[in-house]
Amino acid sequence: MIYLNGRLLPDEETRISPADRGLLLGDGLFETMRAYQGEIFRLRAHLHRLLTSADFLGIPIPDVGEELSQALARTLEANDLSHSDASLRLTLTRGVGPRGLVPPRNTQPTLLITAAPLERTEFPPATAILASVCRNEHSPLANLKTLNYLDNILARQEAVQRGADEALLRNTAGNLAEASAANLFVVFEGVLRSPPLSDGALPGITRGVVMELAQELDIPLVEASLSPERLFEADEAFLTNSLIEVRPLLKVNGREIGDGEVGEITRRIRAGYRKEIE
Amino acid sequence: MIYLNGRLLPDEETRISPADRGLLLGDGLFETMRAYQGEIFRLRAHLHRLLTSADFLGIPIPDVGEELSQALARTLEANDLSHSDASLRLTLTRGVGPRGLVPPRNTQPTLLITAAPLERTEFPPATAILASVCRNEHSPLANLKTLNYLDNILARQEAVQRGADEALLRNTAGNLAEASAANLFVVFEGVLRSPPLSDGALPGITRGVVMELAQELDIPLVEASLSPERLFEADEAFLTNSLIEVRPLLKVNGREIGDGEVGEITRRIRAGYRKEIE
Repeated sequence: MIYLNGRLLPDEETRISPADRGLLLGDGLFETMRAYQGEIFRLRAHLHRLLTSADFLGIPIPDVGEELSQALARTLEANDLSHSDASLRLTLTRGVGPRGLVPPRNTQPTLLITAAPLERTEFPPATAILASVCRNEHSPLANLKTLNYLDNILARQEAVQRGADEALLRNTAGNLAEASAANLFVVFEGVLRSPPLSDGALPGITRGVVMELAQELDIPLVEASLSPERLFEADEAFLTNSLIEVRPLLKVNGREIGDGEVGEITRRIRAGYRKEIE
Repeated sequence: MIYLNGRLLPDEETRISPADRGLLLGDGLFETMRAYQGEIFRLRAHLHRLLTSADFLGIPIPDVGEELSQALARTLEANDLSHSDASLRLTLTRGVGPRGLVPPRNTQPTLLITAAPLERTEFPPATAILASVCRNEHSPLANLKTLNYLDNILARQEAVQRGADEALLRNTAGNLAEASAANLFVVFEGVLRSPPLSDGALPGITRGVVMELAQELDIPLVEASLSPERLFEADEAFLTNSLIEVRPLLKVNGREIGDGEVGEITRRIRAGYRKEIE
């Protein structure tokens, strides 16, 4: 069952208009969330990011007669996932509009929520490539989770073609920004390091959780630019997002990071994360 | 009536799936075309751009039992536009896919065509601003007409807020790339100049027509980088796309270009274009 603007409908009865600006112009946002035993992990952080991004783009939250959190809970319920492990995707578009780029006034935005069962699994260590596609850190959209994902799709396609799991994107200055669908962390001599948002990293919710965990676990952390050359000198690396959680990254472009094994800091962060979701 | 994968249906019966990658990830392309008395202007050039872009992204053209040109003609016909002036939009997405960035094999792409009456009018001279949003000339997508239009929407919103018609986007090197929905031309001492594709300009069909006209009319033309500072020293400027055709640009950021009147070269190009569409 799919949630669309207040109603829960079977997939085949859910109709997106051919004039929806989300479809025609990528004019919208999304959030991917994870529920553990029916509880959406870091729901407030996801909704905060969605609402501030929507505000930036000037997309109102449609009045669907209930809070977003309630809409999400109802979607889980309609899919018998109220007590299960699941993934959710919330999509918000500016809605139907007439031809042209200029957003119409008084649009009725489209709010779409889907949910699917997703069991807890520990993802195996990943490999990545350095993508030839680069990320525009100068765009205000670099820090928003928008529907404009083609650069990332191209990067991921390149990874698949080269037999890797993920693609790391450099920004226009040549520094690493993030992976196609994950944030990047590295470790240098016990210090955790992640590219800053100003280098084009998405403010990932899991990235935020890892930063909190670093503080709790007394692991020093810096947000600082990271060149590909420095990446290869790192002792450890891992990727984060809501679905893969904390996933060790052992090889980039076929070259091992550190000694090619899952590192100590990665293990500690991963264990801390597992506690958070319990 | 709307064309969707081989069928012509009333708007309210046309259903885009909530799992369409065009909607969820901006994974697709589009073309905006103009028909004059039922004949689509520069149809071959539009289809060529669409097909080469689709090939680059790995999106197949769905087998809808007819040529794209026939599908476009049928859409005009179903809307009583076979002998009228009209605008058309063709949207091609990668179609429905499972969760995730990686494009599925064997997708059935979505082919959507809409048409609306559009009378011939000469657009009045335009004003523009220099947008704060910039264009990533390093992305291969900069030269493709994809569904990822949010940067351009932000730029255009900024123009509207500042009381201008259009927004000029600079690239990451600070040079002008194009407008939010048009290509840019300037004139220096009788020489026509337009930003090169490598600076992030979309290879506009109307841009191509203007380049042909320049040759026919013996107007020298260069594709060369253009800084905002140089723009303000130009004698003339104009914008081009299929809908506005050749539109004089008289003011940028409130400052006049040249003497603030429609220039001689602009007039000649505009007259040449009018002959082409007759």
